[in-house]
Amino acid sequence: MLCFHLPDTALHQPPQFLVRGQPRPVPERPERVAAVLEALRARGDRVEDAPAAGPAARAAVHTPEYLAFLETAFARWSALPDAAPVVIPNVHRGPDMLSYPSSVVGQAGFHMSDTACPIAEGTWRATVAAADCAVAAARAVATGGEGAAYALCRPPGHHAGRDMAGGFCYLNHAAIAAEEARRLLAARGRPPRVAVLDVDVHHGNGTQGIFWRRDDVFFASVHGDPAEFYPFMAGHAHERGAGAGLGATLNLPLPLGSSEDAVLRAVEESLAAVARFAPSVLVLSLGFDTFKDDPLAAFAVTTPGFARLGRAIAGAGLPTVLIQEGGYAVDHLAANLSSFLDGFEG
Amino acid sequence: MLCFHLPDTALHQPPQFLVRGQPRPVPERPERVAAVLEALRARGDRVEDAPAAGPAARAAVHTPEYLAFLETAFARWSALPDAAPVVIPNVHRGPDMLSYPSSVVGQAGFHMSDTACPIAEGTWRATVAAADCAVAAARAVATGGEGAAYALCRPPGHHAGRDMAGGFCYLNHAAIAAEEARRLLAARGRPPRVAVLDVDVHHGNGTQGIFWRRDDVFFASVHGDPAEFYPFMAGHAHERGAGAGLGATLNLPLPLGSSEDAVLRAVEESLAAVARFAPSVLVLSLGFDTFKDDPLAAFAVTTPGFARLGRAIAGAGLPTVLIQEGGYAVDHLAANLSSFLDGFEG
Repeated sequence: MLCFHLPDTALHQPPQFLVRGQPRPVPERPERVAAVLEALRARGDRVEDAPAAGPAARAAVHTPEYLAFLETAFARWSALPDAAPVVIPNVHRGPDMLSYPSSVVGQAGFHMSDTACPIAEGTWRATVAAADCAVAAARAVATGGEGAAYALCRPPGHHAGRDMAGGFCYLNHAAIAAEEARRLLAARGRPPRVAVLDVDVHHGNGTQGIFWRRDDVFFASVHGDPAEFYPFMAGHAHERGAGAGLGATLNLPLPLGSSEDAVLRAVEESLAAVARFAPSVLVLSLGFDTFKDDPLAAFAVTTPGFARLGRAIAGAGLPTVLIQEGGYAVDHLAANLSSFLDGFEG
Repeated sequence: MLCFHLPDTALHQPPQFLVRGQPRPVPERPERVAAVLEALRARGDRVEDAPAAGPAARAAVHTPEYLAFLETAFARWSALPDAAPVVIPNVHRGPDMLSYPSSVVGQAGFHMSDTACPIAEGTWRATVAAADCAVAAARAVATGGEGAAYALCRPPGHHAGRDMAGGFCYLNHAAIAAEEARRLLAARGRPPRVAVLDVDVHHGNGTQGIFWRRDDVFFASVHGDPAEFYPFMAGHAHERGAGAGLGATLNLPLPLGSSEDAVLRAVEESLAAVARFAPSVLVLSLGFDTFKDDPLAAFAVTTPGFARLGRAIAGAGLPTVLIQEGGYAVDHLAANLSSFLDGFEG
């Protein structure tokens, strides 16, 4: 498979985040990139450097003030007295709090939905590089004649909203790929309809929010039930989009501890909905944290199970942009990705 | 002055909160209650125990699910593995995240707007006791024939919204007093119009949000400019209410470092707006963190300056419910309150 990678994706190395009021080491580590590269090279995939996509692709999804914040926050935060070594918000946007402050502490609260998206020195360059990989893969599929392309995105992206970081995510690479694919499809006179299928163990709340009122991008997600699992306040089954987008969002939350078969059945159900939407391109938010031994484990997918998942998704017969999302069992990441791609390429 | 107090207000003793990603000791300490009592006794004020107000007064302001969360959160949180000694949220309600989770971690994110409102073992009982004091003071003024009454509320309340804790606040005692006063005024055939004047150094974002669309409660606040100061995303000058409440909110943010004279001028301006609203009762959110040596200092009000503030507010000639909010220079709290009350009683 054609794969895109940039070394800058390893630059994001925040030492800590906050869980249940306590600082903890970040499981989303740069070693994930090396593990994925190992798998791709062992399989003999073509791994290319993604060209710089430029700011327009990012600006198609994110607000100008959010992009400026992401780029400048670490330097501004580091100048504060008594600050943690990474940007971590301590005040948030309540429903009655919508004005935009100038303080970096206030802006962190405005733009960060949790304490699990610490911004460190290399964060901006890493997520920009990941977005570049996503754009390159989208171009290869939407206009380059590739049936599929894989983007080695790190950090992940699917929790990032239009103007909000969250859950280890900063730029939403899947949404950027979807918008880039739409742009290219429209320019070529093809129906600019894209489906995003999210099989990370966590709900893709950022992607959902970005396309919530849109009828040209279908969003489907299979994930651990947010009633008891991150991101808690989005991804519930009753959430189906709004306005023009009503019905173009499908959430299939599964109980924590769900079996591989249950996950596969839910993915098949979401693929049937994707087929009814009839997209020109499929963007896959591909997480491996559904793995049975993932440190954030909620599901029981085995390494061979990822091949089943790959076969099922390839069965949709759609040009597919594969966007790397989560997966924190680093020692198993190469095997799980290889298994998935083997199944996908059948 | 008639004053209400309950010993339970000292039960709230969270050891830490999170600022800029770091755990810090909480400056809002139980010793604040003792300091205030000392001032009241030295002045010869009548200090009475507030009777239990019951749940209806709280339910007039807060949602049922929020009240249930506040009452049960500490016990549920304490049963989690690896949890901090107090409830501190790590995930928040983004604008695209509005479903209600069952997990206490998710509910903490739903109901807590920052990491500065830790819930400890005694938090619920303390804020309920504070609400009881607020209700008792409101009753004394609205129907008991008192020209003014003081409620020794601790923890403070003005950052708490309808379903959200924040900034050391849990129940919004000023809003509860305002609603109780309105209820009693209406029952007696008097215009159920109440003004809330907030002179704490921080914007009363919780109170503002509760009455944002209401034309029967006027809210005015003088505070440090939120562009660079907590709560950052509310209290900006352009915020004036909405719907029926448009124009019934007045924000007078002042630059950090503002002088006592500047604070007095802004309070006079807000009192003129209160007079135009012509309320039957004034509820005063009374913070002493405008003091020049407060650890959260942003303004330069002196101890004699609080007497000027008291005289100005008494000059409105309105029945007044005094609700204690912030003020963290504990060694100066007795002197500052005494000065204020001396000025108020002229």
